[in-house]
Amino acid sequence: MSQAVKTASGQVTGDLYAEVRTYYATQMRRVDTLDIEGFADTFTEDGVVVHSNGVRAEGREEMVAGMHKALPRYRDVAVRHWFDHVLIEPVDGVDELKVSYYSMVTLLDREGRIEFEPTFLVEDVLVRREGRLLTRERVIHRDQPVEQG
Amino acid sequence: MSQAVKTASGQVTGDLYAEVRTYYATQMRRVDTLDIEGFADTFTEDGVVVHSNGVRAEGREEMVAGMHKALPRYRDVAVRHWFDHVLIEPVDGVDELKVSYYSMVTLLDREGRIEFEPTFLVEDVLVRREGRLLTRERVIHRDQPVEQG
Amino acid sequence: MSQAVKTASGQVTGDLYAEVRTYYATQMRRVDTLDIEGFADTFTEDGVVVHSNGVRAEGREEMVAGMHKALPRYRDVAVRHWFDHVLIEPVDGVDELKVSYYSMVTLLDREGRIEFEPTFLVEDVLVRREGRLLTRERVIHRDQPVEQG
Repeated sequence: MSQAVKTASGQVTGDLYAEVRTYYATQMRRVDTLDIEGFADTFTEDGVVVHSNGVRAEGREEMVAGMHKALPRYRDVAVRHWFDHVLIEPVDGVDELKVSYYSMVTLLDREGRIEFEPTFLVEDVLVRREGRLLTRERVIHRDQPVEQG
Repeated sequence: MSQAVKTASGQVTGDLYAEVRTYYATQMRRVDTLDIEGFADTFTEDGVVVHSNGVRAEGREEMVAGMHKALPRYRDVAVRHWFDHVLIEPVDGVDELKVSYYSMVTLLDREGRIEFEPTFLVEDVLVRREGRLLTRERVIHRDQPVEQG
Repeated sequence: MSQAVKTASGQVTGDLYAEVRTYYATQMRRVDTLDIEGFADTFTEDGVVVHSNGVRAEGREEMVAGMHKALPRYRDVAVRHWFDHVLIEPVDGVDELKVSYYSMVTLLDREGRIEFEPTFLVEDVLVRREGRLLTRERVIHRDQPVEQG
């Protein structure tokens, strides 16, 4: 019973899948523990984040400044980002990847109550630098009802 | 430090795991963007869906008709299906798989409020046709309290 | 387009990732269907669970006793444990692993209403015994707001 799946063009290997999920597991621990510098280090030096409200942070420095400004929001809550349906599209072998995923955000207060932010679709471009993955671009889309004719 | 896991009978390889997760990542993007025909195309021509209320759709045509009828429900909300604990059991190598998973459904309205549908366990039979996976059968079970003696 | 990722020290292979996820998919089905003995069997005989309130169960026997005592809590609800951001760190090849993950718990009542418990970070030590993974230690941390200076 061989499970040797012919790696069709665009087929994502198990190793790459595990690597990408591991990368995000690390990145999200950093953002959720408010390790701002550590989070910024998971981006390229010129990394870009486009938030769902259109606000754009270009480069690690702007990213760090923006996150410091947002800190008061998380003074009394534990924020957690949850991902699902990660879709990986190799652009240049394993050295550049388009990755998109569903995202849900929970805010837990000290009394144990959870609130949910809106759900999002996130589109990333990951690139490999000295062997490790970094985010070069992140575009965050707030989910919207589909327009029906 | 070798990670060569002896592939025991029934052991799921990383490649197959990644392929199945990628398949669902695509299928769910289609259902959640109300791409009804695109969603139906991820099933075999004679694919069957048994909903948790017992309603049964047999074949792509019935599936498409049922989904068109349900569209008004999603006029003002963005629906998202979230999966977890995907369990893959090869039936016939990589050409027929029993797959089950937890499912959670969120409904996001225009104001950013989230509602949750009940949680479900879904049992699929996936089959490989011309290299790609398709769903031949889906049975959706609404989670129920366990009867205690 | 080769996806051959050089397996750096600590790099998790696709096979190991799939195996760990499959292990948890099985373990969570057991706990969520209140299959107490089946759940205990996914631990080593001397397995330890440290709950977020400090309560400690040492060995399968204590684990089973504690779970039987908790059963009334689940008389009218279906509990489901959801995981994300699984991070696997091989300690001794594939025979001993440190694994941590986010966890969310839903409680679904008969009317279809969902409640959420607090979110958690769980830290496990998994060990391989006769080929299969077992949990030797589980420490559950309730998520807390980060202390800001």
